[in-house]
Amino acid sequence: MAKDKVKPRILTGFMELLPEEQILFNKIYDTIRGVYESFGFLPLDTPVIELSEVLLAKAGGETEKQIYRFNKGDNDLALRFDLTVPLARYVAQHSGQLTFPFKRYQMSKVYRGERPQKGRFREFYQCDIDIIGNEELDIAYDAEMPAVIYNVFRKLDFGKFTIRLNNRKVLNGFFASIGLEDKISDILRIIDKLEKIGEENVILELEKIGVEQENIKKIIEFISIDGSESEKINALKNLGVENEMFIEGVNELNVVTEYMRVFGIDEDYFTIDLTIARGLDYYTGTVYETILDDYRSLGSVCSGGRYDNLTEYYTNTKLPGIGISIGLTRLFSQLKDAGIIKVERASLVDCLVVPMGVEMEYVLKTAKAIRDGGLITDVYYANKGMKQKMKYANKLGVPFVAVIGEDEQKSGTCSIKNMETGEQKTVKIEDACKEIKRQIGE
Amino acid sequence: MAKDKVKPRILTGFMELLPEEQILFNKIYDTIRGVYESFGFLPLDTPVIELSEVLLAKAGGETEKQIYRFNKGDNDLALRFDLTVPLARYVAQHSGQLTFPFKRYQMSKVYRGERPQKGRFREFYQCDIDIIGNEELDIAYDAEMPAVIYNVFRKLDFGKFTIRLNNRKVLNGFFASIGLEDKISDILRIIDKLEKIGEENVILELEKIGVEQENIKKIIEFISIDGSESEKINALKNLGVENEMFIEGVNELNVVTEYMRVFGIDEDYFTIDLTIARGLDYYTGTVYETILDDYRSLGSVCSGGRYDNLTEYYTNTKLPGIGISIGLTRLFSQLKDAGIIKVERASLVDCLVVPMGVEMEYVLKTAKAIRDGGLITDVYYANKGMKQKMKYANKLGVPFVAVIGEDEQKSGTCSIKNMETGEQKTVKIEDACKEIKRQIGE
Repeated sequence: MAKDKVKPRILTGFMELLPEEQILFNKIYDTIRGVYESFGFLPLDTPVIELSEVLLAKAGGETEKQIYRFNKGDNDLALRFDLTVPLARYVAQHSGQLTFPFKRYQMSKVYRGERPQKGRFREFYQCDIDIIGNEELDIAYDAEMPAVIYNVFRKLDFGKFTIRLNNRKVLNGFFASIGLEDKISDILRIIDKLEKIGEENVILELEKIGVEQENIKKIIEFISIDGSESEKINALKNLGVENEMFIEGVNELNVVTEYMRVFGIDEDYFTIDLTIARGLDYYTGTVYETILDDYRSLGSVCSGGRYDNLTEYYTNTKLPGIGISIGLTRLFSQLKDAGIIKVERASLVDCLVVPMGVEMEYVLKTAKAIRDGGLITDVYYANKGMKQKMKYANKLGVPFVAVIGEDEQKSGTCSIKNMETGEQKTVKIEDACKEIKRQIGE
Repeated sequence: MAKDKVKPRILTGFMELLPEEQILFNKIYDTIRGVYESFGFLPLDTPVIELSEVLLAKAGGETEKQIYRFNKGDNDLALRFDLTVPLARYVAQHSGQLTFPFKRYQMSKVYRGERPQKGRFREFYQCDIDIIGNEELDIAYDAEMPAVIYNVFRKLDFGKFTIRLNNRKVLNGFFASIGLEDKISDILRIIDKLEKIGEENVILELEKIGVEQENIKKIIEFISIDGSESEKINALKNLGVENEMFIEGVNELNVVTEYMRVFGIDEDYFTIDLTIARGLDYYTGTVYETILDDYRSLGSVCSGGRYDNLTEYYTNTKLPGIGISIGLTRLFSQLKDAGIIKVERASLVDCLVVPMGVEMEYVLKTAKAIRDGGLITDVYYANKGMKQKMKYANKLGVPFVAVIGEDEQKSGTCSIKNMETGEQKTVKIEDACKEIKRQIGE
């Protein structure tokens, strides 16, 4: 490379894909979008750049350090770091023009200037859905969320998965009942690590923060509840906890799991997990995590929950909501590394037209006939030999080639070659599309 | 609003849509994407943030002033201001892994911190396609570009449009032949304004920069060439210009317009326009603009052209290319203001299930049956009166409502109400989807 050239490169922590990977990424993206829309969620697209004052109304600590923040003219600006704060701002700003319950999806990039490490990105797609109620929001939506998750991951076909759910009222009520309200956030943080660090270490950490042995026993008993979903509900009821919030939470868990069955979610695909709390402060009811059973080390691939008030930093109107999020960039990167998803083809093209010494008019007529029939069609225009043209088709993984030479032009035909089987069949150009569709079984 | 609340708002110059507008925007976006893909273009998605050194390798002057540029850690960063520079960087960086000719589309947001004004945005979507050759690129692609434009705008259905094309070699060769090589960029700038300022002012401006009367006459004669496309080609040939580049350019124009016809582009939809130069320095062959005939004041809605070397700032490999771009945000905003496009519905939902005092199991069974049949389906869960539920359906513009009361539950049916005609029909829930599809004529 000459010295006056700039070395072409991107920043670490940014995912950029080759076309064949991008095709795969888009297929996943489109599948998620399709399921989100099938449940009636509306599209939203908020600006990447917002005023820092607005975007950081709530933020603080770790989040604020990661923000891409800068000045332009007189404005103190920041890049969005999630899609929840922009949603809150949007709903507060446009509430008069929205119809509640407001169901929206947004599948866009967000920015966090973290130290890059494996599986962590500074620019990444979040695929969010939220349902926002005006003052109230029916409990049925707590079951609709996992129904959406279920449909998304069944369609994506990454293998067996489990939706874990819990209810923050159950957790908060339980800990209040044993007089540990003031330690709730510490205890939740420790419980949340159960799977990672094991029961023994959970006990040690609980001791460290001053929980008494008697209460540690109760906590372990509580998070050890097992069995079928209805057995778990019964075990919770039989704990003898008389805290009102606890009782409300158990009832909600009961209703939500019942509705989930009615939503058609296979029993094998969900479970009540009392150790799930979700880190964020604002969850107040049902919470979810989703695990790919064969790849538990990936952690939760889709999480969320119910919150009491989306827009508290912007308005006094109470807008409760419920939402989930898929971190698609990270998920894609992990699935690719784990070999769960594989590049299938380097091109979207269904049929490549390969002319061998025929008039351009016949070339384009052939391509148009196949494209108009609904197949993605490209033409190899450059004047190269047959071998090179086939090499190009192979490199892109094009499934069909339509060869046209003098003989074909004379008879108004083309030779359709199935690149997988090697079989070749000569058909009229107006039948070419039909023939290819027949071979791919459409 | 309480004093401790932050006022929810966004920056001026950023387009943010209401859901019903976003649905319309996405429909246009998806149509463009569909046509791009049908011609075999591959998807690309580059980072919004790049290293300033890489992104600004070429930039300077006005462009550089508009850049959102900032530091994070040790890095001097900038937000992309178009999709062409990232493409050049991408191709230079990954050239060993790409198959040439490389056809890619990217439809993403770009950023320019301009002073905001009507129809100008600081964040906007560009919808680009480019075809990059390795050392060479067949002339057929110069006709494929307008074929893509033609298919896009026929599908978008914004009314009659005209693709104007020219060739930079014709322009450059012509001005060289009258000894005005050194004034070419000034003259092209003046000619480009012909439509805006008229012939008289063009003459005045040409005088101002010192063009002699004899040459002004020749220039006016040149840009006044009119008639059918073949008449224009003949008139160019008959000008008696013996410059080699000019002759090459005229031949290219001739071949490209012939191929465009073969591509099936209606003669009424394109014209050779010798006043088109396109501002950018790097165009070297065919150039395009696209005008909506009934809304000429919008200016060009899709422009582009051929360039000799995409990656000159990054590598020594010669990579010629050709590309076009649609500035979708601006176009959408203009079309909406002009009333050419109109919001159709505030929801994607085809059918809203409205339960009146029936069991949740029956509600969800009904919704699932309709959704699984392929219709976007939502449920009104909240326990409100019939009137309020219908008001909600009307506000969202939902075309069908499936009412289920006790009678329906008993007989395994639902009452499908066509919200436009008001007609109601009771059918078995397993036939509900079919009935709705029948009514919308699918």
